[in-house]
Amino acid sequence: MHLTGMSLIGARSGAGTQESFRGFAPGTGTVLEPPFFVASSEEVNAAAAVSSKAFPIYASIPGSGRAHFLRAIAAKLQSAETELAERAHLETALPLPRLRSEIARTAGQLRLFASVVDEGSWSLPRIDHADSNRKPAAKPDIRSMLRPLGPVAVFGASNFPFAFSVAGGDTASALAAGNPVIVKAHPAHPGTSELVGRLIQESVVECGLPEGVFSLLFDSGPRVGEELVAHPLIKAGGFTGSFAAGRALFRIAANRPEPIPFYAEMGSTNPLFVLPRALASSGQKIAEDLYSSFTLGAGQFCTKPGLIFVGESAGLQDFFSALGAKVEESASFTLLTDRIRQSYDKTARDRERNTNVQVFTKAQIAPSGSACAAPAVVYRAEASVFMEDASLAEEMFGPSTLLIACKRKEEILECARRLHGHLTATIHGTAEDLQEYAELLPVLVTKVGRIIFNGYPTGVEVCHAMVHGGPFPSTADSRTTSVGTLAIHRFARPICYQDCPDALLPGELQENNPLNVWRLVDGEFTNARSC
Amino acid sequence: MHLTGMSLIGARSGAGTQESFRGFAPGTGTVLEPPFFVASSEEVNAAAAVSSKAFPIYASIPGSGRAHFLRAIAAKLQSAETELAERAHLETALPLPRLRSEIARTAGQLRLFASVVDEGSWSLPRIDHADSNRKPAAKPDIRSMLRPLGPVAVFGASNFPFAFSVAGGDTASALAAGNPVIVKAHPAHPGTSELVGRLIQESVVECGLPEGVFSLLFDSGPRVGEELVAHPLIKAGGFTGSFAAGRALFRIAANRPEPIPFYAEMGSTNPLFVLPRALASSGQKIAEDLYSSFTLGAGQFCTKPGLIFVGESAGLQDFFSALGAKVEESASFTLLTDRIRQSYDKTARDRERNTNVQVFTKAQIAPSGSACAAPAVVYRAEASVFMEDASLAEEMFGPSTLLIACKRKEEILECARRLHGHLTATIHGTAEDLQEYAELLPVLVTKVGRIIFNGYPTGVEVCHAMVHGGPFPSTADSRTTSVGTLAIHRFARPICYQDCPDALLPGELQENNPLNVWRLVDGEFTNARSC
Repeated sequence: MHLTGMSLIGARSGAGTQESFRGFAPGTGTVLEPPFFVASSEEVNAAAAVSSKAFPIYASIPGSGRAHFLRAIAAKLQSAETELAERAHLETALPLPRLRSEIARTAGQLRLFASVVDEGSWSLPRIDHADSNRKPAAKPDIRSMLRPLGPVAVFGASNFPFAFSVAGGDTASALAAGNPVIVKAHPAHPGTSELVGRLIQESVVECGLPEGVFSLLFDSGPRVGEELVAHPLIKAGGFTGSFAAGRALFRIAANRPEPIPFYAEMGSTNPLFVLPRALASSGQKIAEDLYSSFTLGAGQFCTKPGLIFVGESAGLQDFFSALGAKVEESASFTLLTDRIRQSYDKTARDRERNTNVQVFTKAQIAPSGSACAAPAVVYRAEASVFMEDASLAEEMFGPSTLLIACKRKEEILECARRLHGHLTATIHGTAEDLQEYAELLPVLVTKVGRIIFNGYPTGVEVCHAMVHGGPFPSTADSRTTSVGTLAIHRFARPICYQDCPDALLPGELQENNPLNVWRLVDGEFTNARSC
Repeated sequence: MHLTGMSLIGARSGAGTQESFRGFAPGTGTVLEPPFFVASSEEVNAAAAVSSKAFPIYASIPGSGRAHFLRAIAAKLQSAETELAERAHLETALPLPRLRSEIARTAGQLRLFASVVDEGSWSLPRIDHADSNRKPAAKPDIRSMLRPLGPVAVFGASNFPFAFSVAGGDTASALAAGNPVIVKAHPAHPGTSELVGRLIQESVVECGLPEGVFSLLFDSGPRVGEELVAHPLIKAGGFTGSFAAGRALFRIAANRPEPIPFYAEMGSTNPLFVLPRALASSGQKIAEDLYSSFTLGAGQFCTKPGLIFVGESAGLQDFFSALGAKVEESASFTLLTDRIRQSYDKTARDRERNTNVQVFTKAQIAPSGSACAAPAVVYRAEASVFMEDASLAEEMFGPSTLLIACKRKEEILECARRLHGHLTATIHGTAEDLQEYAELLPVLVTKVGRIIFNGYPTGVEVCHAMVHGGPFPSTADSRTTSVGTLAIHRFARPICYQDCPDALLPGELQENNPLNVWRLVDGEFTNARSC
């Protein structure tokens, strides 16, 4: 495919402004062709208008039609795997095998949402039958189900050029629920974004859908995204990225004349607790696996374990030695962008200046081999220091983590109580540990969206039960997830039909249940054909 | 019960500030004893603190325990029916039979939520089993369900002293989900609020729950409510009331350092369409029933039909005559507060000054018989005027409605397209009408939370399928309902357990399904005892 550098406004290519930017190869430090043209305010308006026009048409297509569309996008992604992975490799320096598996995951995610809307029960159909004999007043027939919100603005993330980007989870779930999508491409991988965007644009045409179902806008700064979230025709937003950007967009969404839901996933430091018996029996293994987890994707995962709480007990030295050895011998990592590398370096300098924080261990070789190279580094602080210094709980994006040495059980629990919101928390413990630290789980449940036992938070399974979300500041809205099939609920609202003629009801609510969905009928779950 | 005029801070009575206010009897114009003392900022802090302390304990009580508590409150409400109805009658001038039935509805609502949490499937339990053989990586065991958010601030509404007040739908759904509640009493019925609050306080003790599960705060102004919503320990809010107050509180909630969900139901004007054949065949009957609907509760229902769209076709004169006759002969109505009466009078004066709006008909007798008396009045405007004058779509709280005369079918559809968000829309039409106006339903679906066919929007059924919510400005969050069992979802968020030992899981997620709940297991709905 030929890259044009132009935004996609429905079926059209945009004209852009005078302003342009180029992709950058973090591996080689070279600037990439072609230029990408920043969308104009008129293009933002045009995308919103075409999207709004498409909404009632797209919203009325049955689940099977939306499923067909999602599967068409998935098939095109996999057909173009080589080209997509190569461009993404240039733009992100992420390894090709990882990118190929991310494309497979993205296609799988689209197909999973296809299966969910094909089946239909996701919309929580509910029926309460009429009772004309009820006193004092007859009871009407009441039916409700979830229906789409309207055009959704989606922001691509830097660290997952496929799975959290143009055709990623936000797009897949918003389209699945019946909403048109306008993606603001992440400027760290504009070429990858255009390639994927064109595949979606082609799928729209091939599925006979109105052109406004999908648009893609380019910008290297915040203007286009801000205009999009403030636009009166946009009804919701999905974002994965930094706290500062996510909170700024959330505030725009909440303070519009008409507030809209804005789902900002803003990162997390992800506490991990190693309890005494697990440390004694498996300290070395945990250290090695932990190293793999916090350096996965060069440590640029929102679920990276970034706070490691360990007690001073048997096995601690083995744990420390094994972790130290892995870090010392590690090669340098290539970060996604120069900005991320600068931010990593800045936090490293701050921590090195902080007299209460020690560098526990650092890669022996100087960062090299790429323009955005960075070393793995592990810091260490006392629990008492952690509890006083809020900056230590902040995310450090890159191959780094922080060990918190706790002297007593009570110190571990107190650290847990002081945590703010995170996406995940992890406990390594034997059955006896979990009994001894029984107070830990109820505390962590109030702090995070997912709790992992004897594993690692990186590697977010795409399935029905996954929750990739959590209390503020990890997300702007803890009531939702951005991974897993429950994510579709973010982009829908309940609509109720009272005494509606059967033929005018959506299939999910018709009396004889033609779609064979699971429904709550007069308070009982059933998928019976006839109520 | 003896009224003390003091806030309830957990198990304690507050001390209040120097400032106090009294209830007012709109029927007689008399000031009521005793004085109610405005809660101090320290009392707001104390209520939040005791609530936050109770949260992890109350959250860990199984659904059956919360159900027992809700049923205890319901039983106490019904035992105290006479005393409650009498005080509420004094404070609101609502008729005693209506108040008694509202108490029954409020108790029924508490019992309905009790049955929902007793059964347990509301929490959407999901299980995806592990697969240790999966390549390239083993699949972990992932389980998730909805869990409570934390302390919830609830604002009592003026127009439903029971069903949308201290023990109303917001309180019932928040408590059902496992959240402590702090109610800010509505100053229009402080005595009723204290009586109900004390019944809940007694139920907390009798059920052996931590005292912070419930608190009640008094204020006649906005300070206490604002402090409550801004308080860092409060995790969500529920509100029913005016647009101005709802939006102000929503903005506080969204702009806190940690934003929280705030569910503001801010009223609605509720369009009702009478299509030609229905008009021709049943014009007179519709007019009479419409009159009953828009004057129900003296027109102080959020679901009052306030915009009546009629085409110029056969039957219109009969419709007009019947409506005119009902209004002309109507006695005066007593509004809830002097402020509501003043606001009703002001809008009436504005409309009378508006040369594009006609007084279609008005009660013949002067308002009398009470301090807050107001006449029924129906206005009329052309569709072209309605489309240009946004003020005509605003809610006029009281026994009034506005007729919009439409010349052509296209004008009716265009009026529908120009609507903003409402709680409900109603269509009166025969099968042929609905066919001819097929475009109307898809438009209305995007504007409201509930669509009624050949009925009236007042009378909100409390059931599983009800949606009492809608797009902005009718609510601040269209994704939810404040009536019906789906309302419980407002106060919960999904929590995920990865590879969690079975014994540490909530009952809803344990492998052998001890609570016998409906779950999504590996993508299939089942309530099987063993997965």
